[in-house]
Amino acid sequence: MLPLQIQPESRIPLYAQLRDQLRALVRIGQLMPGDRIPPSRELAARLGVHRTTVANAYAELEAEGLIRGHVGRGTFICGKIDADPRSEAPQPPMPGRNGGVHWDGLFAEERAEESLDRLLPARGRSAISFIVAQPPQDLFPLDDFRRCTNAVLRSRGREILQLGQTGGYPPLQEALGAWLRADGILGPRDHILVTSGCQQGLDLLARVFLRPGDAVLLENPTYPGALAAFSSRHVRVIGAPVRAGAGVDPDAIGFALDRNRVKLMVLMPDFQNPSGSTLSLEDRRKVLELAERYRVPVVEDYIYARLRVSGQPIPSLKALDRAGLVIQIDSLSKLAFPGLRVGWCVTPEAVAERLRLAKQAADLHTSQLAQAAAAEFLRRGMLARHMERMRDVYRKRLHAALEALERSMPEGVQWSAPEGGMCVWVTLPPGLDAVELLVRARERGVLFAPGRLFYLDHAQPNTLRLGFSELNERRIARGVSLLGQIVREQTRRSRTRRSLAGGDGLGAVTLV
Amino acid sequence: MLPLQIQPESRIPLYAQLRDQLRALVRIGQLMPGDRIPPSRELAARLGVHRTTVANAYAELEAEGLIRGHVGRGTFICGKIDADPRSEAPQPPMPGRNGGVHWDGLFAEERAEESLDRLLPARGRSAISFIVAQPPQDLFPLDDFRRCTNAVLRSRGREILQLGQTGGYPPLQEALGAWLRADGILGPRDHILVTSGCQQGLDLLARVFLRPGDAVLLENPTYPGALAAFSSRHVRVIGAPVRAGAGVDPDAIGFALDRNRVKLMVLMPDFQNPSGSTLSLEDRRKVLELAERYRVPVVEDYIYARLRVSGQPIPSLKALDRAGLVIQIDSLSKLAFPGLRVGWCVTPEAVAERLRLAKQAADLHTSQLAQAAAAEFLRRGMLARHMERMRDVYRKRLHAALEALERSMPEGVQWSAPEGGMCVWVTLPPGLDAVELLVRARERGVLFAPGRLFYLDHAQPNTLRLGFSELNERRIARGVSLLGQIVREQTRRSRTRRSLAGGDGLGAVTLV
Repeated sequence: MLPLQIQPESRIPLYAQLRDQLRALVRIGQLMPGDRIPPSRELAARLGVHRTTVANAYAELEAEGLIRGHVGRGTFICGKIDADPRSEAPQPPMPGRNGGVHWDGLFAEERAEESLDRLLPARGRSAISFIVAQPPQDLFPLDDFRRCTNAVLRSRGREILQLGQTGGYPPLQEALGAWLRADGILGPRDHILVTSGCQQGLDLLARVFLRPGDAVLLENPTYPGALAAFSSRHVRVIGAPVRAGAGVDPDAIGFALDRNRVKLMVLMPDFQNPSGSTLSLEDRRKVLELAERYRVPVVEDYIYARLRVSGQPIPSLKALDRAGLVIQIDSLSKLAFPGLRVGWCVTPEAVAERLRLAKQAADLHTSQLAQAAAAEFLRRGMLARHMERMRDVYRKRLHAALEALERSMPEGVQWSAPEGGMCVWVTLPPGLDAVELLVRARERGVLFAPGRLFYLDHAQPNTLRLGFSELNERRIARGVSLLGQIVREQTRRSRTRRSLAGGDGLGAVTLV
Repeated sequence: MLPLQIQPESRIPLYAQLRDQLRALVRIGQLMPGDRIPPSRELAARLGVHRTTVANAYAELEAEGLIRGHVGRGTFICGKIDADPRSEAPQPPMPGRNGGVHWDGLFAEERAEESLDRLLPARGRSAISFIVAQPPQDLFPLDDFRRCTNAVLRSRGREILQLGQTGGYPPLQEALGAWLRADGILGPRDHILVTSGCQQGLDLLARVFLRPGDAVLLENPTYPGALAAFSSRHVRVIGAPVRAGAGVDPDAIGFALDRNRVKLMVLMPDFQNPSGSTLSLEDRRKVLELAERYRVPVVEDYIYARLRVSGQPIPSLKALDRAGLVIQIDSLSKLAFPGLRVGWCVTPEAVAERLRLAKQAADLHTSQLAQAAAAEFLRRGMLARHMERMRDVYRKRLHAALEALERSMPEGVQWSAPEGGMCVWVTLPPGLDAVELLVRARERGVLFAPGRLFYLDHAQPNTLRLGFSELNERRIARGVSLLGQIVREQTRRSRTRRSLAGGDGLGAVTLV
């Protein structure tokens, strides 16, 4: 019998009491990895609480990676609390007296989420950084953009600076509409809603589709910002594994949909972040069939899709969608200017008004200065020209990265060979840890994003992401060559675990 | 015994089943206004559900104004379902087949929230509209602003258009810091976080402080966007009444804090929207004492505070705060450019990192183009000059509005006499309905915002808000004079209820 005590009169919600006590039992070793914990129904009956209370506590512990359910066998402690090197990082100072008041217990969450960006080394001036996946700012078409901004402020300045419409600045709606209709993405009954980047698209869709306790399906590994968007909604996140080079596994999706009341799934079929993999046409059709069968809306994250540099384009989920269940989110952030924060959702009619209300509650509307400048940049054909140019740049850089990997990596190292996007996903020989590699690499002036930052669960510590888009071919070759040397050394060396945190040079990089 | 049936195996959450069935019983008349409904504990026992389930259902019905608890007496039907003219509006088309799939039941909320902005008449070219509270765009310092935008794009364009820091663009942080320190608002341990307007400030604070089921205290009446920010968080909203001319009632706040587990309160001490009232220094101290005693963080909405045109400024809650519990939200939207969507929060240290994580999950960061232009506008002293100029403009307009009300309104009409802000709050004689008045007024080319749009509950149908900031003195005088005539006619006329909705000219105006 577990020593659990629930205090119904406490200010702390019942499920949080239960969650915290279970977490504490793991910490002090009274529950060990492999231990089975009682089914929620049984524990609820014993504690005299509602089953939802136990389910909520379990859901949070599962999201933390502390427990894991095995179909037909029960729920078990995985003991990730110690296996994760992040827990070795110095704890953030406890909220203490700040001019008088203790903040403990006043926040919605007892502990702040761990900020992934704090774990990444800041980009030094001289370091060769493969950390981020973003366009190189030295190739921004600045003069073009400035002319656009000037022109719209001259012609429609008053309107731009006054409060606007929640759905988007009309000239941007028009410019996007013309483009996306020609692309076959915007159907006759679809609507466009302008967002502050894809990140906001995810956040608004979480608001529209998910209640506390609902489940959302994400790819595993995935873009960490997706997890962040859902984390404050008190929802359960289910990961569907991504197959090396082949994208998310439709069978795993079917399995998950069959066993969970999934209310939304978020997929990135093209040049998936971080794996670089692309879903085949056949698998796209399978995914859409599943969505229709289980009536689950699909969010298609299209942010990298237009950065194809070789091979044949595959129709988007949105274009293939017959049931009208796909909502596509997209952005200028990878195509042109991340700092502008202009993105959009293409949604079926039934979703549009819900999304508009969510956007209104979130921030009324996206900055019209940014929207107007973006609209003009599109309208003048500058975006199309810029994308053309950047695809040439990225083709060379991707090529350089793949060549360098081929040349520099010892046997046993594998990597994706994407036909576009901004990243290559590298798998080291089993037993090597990318975080340890990063400690060494940083000493030699090379940086990358360890793969574990992208996993919801089942993190593969021997994976890493190389973002090549910001580096020229020479630096890519040099960086990969240095990495190759370090991997060789690491395979030889006895493996001593080192903490990444606590070192100098840690800064705040937003991982995109 | 109420005919209630809960289906534990349904996809629909238990509390939603209960809520919907109770709502239906009111609609078909089986529950009538004045009827007492069972205490949550009793009903939970009878239905075999957890008490939280019933409490959640009741909380939602209370938020809708359908039921109301009376301390010591029980919970009663108020029957607002029919009293609200909005329910006479044509229902939005049920989500039907959109290319194949029924969307019923797929959203987080069964019904879309009612969009207040859809209820407001669009601003015709010729109509005299008192609807909005926003700066007049014909007085925007456009050339100044365009020069700022140009300058920053020339000097720091690459950095601006690249992905930035979540907390804010550093030059804007610096410019705001210098200003707010000089103002006595930014303390040595405070942090600034840039947001996309005050609306996003509210939304992020809801994320940081509120779990599903928590309670938040708002002023009643209040800015409708505040309610929108909390509505998707599944929290209970408690209204504290605003006293005519004197601001929110501290005794009512004390009463509410004593009886509810309030986790956050949102107050607008200066020129409260919509009432125009200002809280006295004594009442500010009382509110802060209560916050400290009950350990409840206070959000001070400072958006109108700098628009004082007469009388003595009163120190802000932030400046008076000794306990470090006040978070101030503010924005350029009333001071200069609403369409730019640049606002900020001033927060105690303990809150800053939580808020930063919430912002990162929401949209990574606010558009740096908007931030950089705003920073330059501040840095060059242009904002200070513009505010000076606009205060002169608003002083004349407020004066014109108050004079016209004095001249044109029949006996029995009352109004606030604010010393700043953008609105005058008018109370018609009891029995008159501002929505009916608006139907008449629109025919004569005058528009305003009916007071009921601002109430959380206990709506006073005989109230209305006159936003004077966009209109010149001549149009203010003419508009108020027409309104006076219509009020006279209405008092004489037999009162026939007319539906506002369904008429032509309805458009989408965001109510700020």
